[in-house]
Amino acid sequence: MSLEGRYDESANVVRLGENARQRFHDARGYGYPLSGNEIALAPVEAAHLLYRGDLEAVVDVESGERLSFRSFVAREPGTEFGVRFLVYADLRSRGFYLSPAAEPWLVDPPTADFAVFPRGKGPGDGEIAYTMRVIGERTDVPAADLASGVLAVVDEESEITYFDVGRADPRGSSTATLPDGCDADLLADRVVVWDPPLDLYEEAFYGQPLEGREYDRPTLQCSLLEAAFLVERGAIDLESSVVRERGREVEGERFGRRRRVYTALRERGVVPKTGYKFGADFRTYADVESVDELGHSELLVRVHSASAVFEPRDLALDVRLAHGVRKTMVFALVDGEEIEWWSLERLTP
Amino acid sequence: MSLEGRYDESANVVRLGENARQRFHDARGYGYPLSGNEIALAPVEAAHLLYRGDLEAVVDVESGERLSFRSFVAREPGTEFGVRFLVYADLRSRGFYLSPAAEPWLVDPPTADFAVFPRGKGPGDGEIAYTMRVIGERTDVPAADLASGVLAVVDEESEITYFDVGRADPRGSSTATLPDGCDADLLADRVVVWDPPLDLYEEAFYGQPLEGREYDRPTLQCSLLEAAFLVERGAIDLESSVVRERGREVEGERFGRRRRVYTALRERGVVPKTGYKFGADFRTYADVESVDELGHSELLVRVHSASAVFEPRDLALDVRLAHGVRKTMVFALVDGEEIEWWSLERLTP
Repeated sequence: MSLEGRYDESANVVRLGENARQRFHDARGYGYPLSGNEIALAPVEAAHLLYRGDLEAVVDVESGERLSFRSFVAREPGTEFGVRFLVYADLRSRGFYLSPAAEPWLVDPPTADFAVFPRGKGPGDGEIAYTMRVIGERTDVPAADLASGVLAVVDEESEITYFDVGRADPRGSSTATLPDGCDADLLADRVVVWDPPLDLYEEAFYGQPLEGREYDRPTLQCSLLEAAFLVERGAIDLESSVVRERGREVEGERFGRRRRVYTALRERGVVPKTGYKFGADFRTYADVESVDELGHSELLVRVHSASAVFEPRDLALDVRLAHGVRKTMVFALVDGEEIEWWSLERLTP
Repeated sequence: MSLEGRYDESANVVRLGENARQRFHDARGYGYPLSGNEIALAPVEAAHLLYRGDLEAVVDVESGERLSFRSFVAREPGTEFGVRFLVYADLRSRGFYLSPAAEPWLVDPPTADFAVFPRGKGPGDGEIAYTMRVIGERTDVPAADLASGVLAVVDEESEITYFDVGRADPRGSSTATLPDGCDADLLADRVVVWDPPLDLYEEAFYGQPLEGREYDRPTLQCSLLEAAFLVERGAIDLESSVVRERGREVEGERFGRRRRVYTALRERGVVPKTGYKFGADFRTYADVESVDELGHSELLVRVHSASAVFEPRDLALDVRLAHGVRKTMVFALVDGEEIEWWSLERLTP
């Protein structure tokens, strides 16, 4: 039996009478109860019922106009209506019930666009599987707005990618004793350490040996970040300020942020090596005992200012690449001395 | 037997006497012949012989100073000396001979940093395996400077990535007849086509059906790019200027460039679909007969203005991702109506 709803544009809800409460709310998790058997639907909910043919039409209570699915969605009833509808419909087709993350759909709603309930559960069961934010691929994401939960991005062809966003806390057990005052030269944007003890490479995993010489006293090429760290620990004999100054010359402010993150990772027992081949700042190894027995690196770390603004397309690229090489993508957001660590992973709900 | 060279800093060459011509040039492809048995070496060549211990030292002919490998490289003799030396040494260790791409090392040298000869060949054999340009990862690459050949990028930890850079020419056999004047609505940044013939999706591969309705008259969601193309061919009933205007509103100038490339690909018989999940503008299918038998997409296309400037790290990210999903990375550089197509692939020399 098809029904008609009453669209109250000022409240931006569609009201449904007859046996709606039992049929749509209790049995299928749409809307919230009004008095008696009546329920109220958010526009995405009403559009979904219209689309499926469960609702025949909605009538604009102001103008009396009778709206089909097509004419209802053409009004774009609500912010970002199109992308929210697509995500709503996708999650429904995957067997989830979901509500707008707002009262009175939910008591004490999370800060998000939708609350998605565990499969088989509904709005009254008090459990939330995903708190979900929905954006289009053209919507910028300020780093400051990152929040734990799921970020659904609808691309220009209306396909949806889900990202699981959460706090990260990189920790490891890599510690190694450093030598004292090794000879080194600063050359352009790298540092050559002359004949250091092999352990500096082999156990502590600094630098990269220049190939072709006897190996027990390697010629070690270090990045400016590695060198800046080693200089401050007294392990190589250069002026700390000179190395830092060179870093700023060749990388600007980015060098300071990357140095902060490099230092934090080392202090957390994690070895950062360049992530250049993955387009990231670092790949990291949590438990280095010897370079000969090096495992797989676990994280790709991208360093940003805490005031950075992400484009969803760049997030998609980073997360996709990390996934392809079986690593987790981590964003280190630097604000002065403070670092916030966030991980993003693809999710299939 | 170890030798000493004479470093002429003003000419920036190291001259070697005794049996140098036979020993280093004829047998091992270093330098170019002077009179008699003498040869001249570029600084990278001299540094390589110093590093290997074939040369004991070079003497600065001006100051009389005796230079070891360390003190010679500390002078950074020549532009980008450090990164060029690393690439020179890497290719030597891979069994190649190579020369500076300059006279008198070579007759009619290519525009590059090095000419790398086929394995087993040398500068006198008239064959070049790779014309090679060398940069550090912090050196910007203006799109206008792209050139066919190999681009070697030395990262901050002195590892080298080689990219094979060449012109691309995307072509395909995807052609399909379009319907006339289908009903459509422009909604925010996408277009819904109402009940078009199934072929518009199924054979021509436009849009994405909204799931959950009968399939023979799909509700097709199209991107603004797809819609702009379809509108101009009369396939959907919207104002062309309105769709283009919306594109510019949501994407700015980028929309015009992407529309130019979208149209060119369609005209070349190639189907572009969004590359969002790969962080690119398009993934492309050369030979679409039916969506049911869709093969693997072959290219990832990124659209840029012809005046764009690449950062090597971004190139590394794109090429690495494309490689991981078995596609070729193509850059479409747009200058007004003109498009230059370039492909970049990883190369192991």
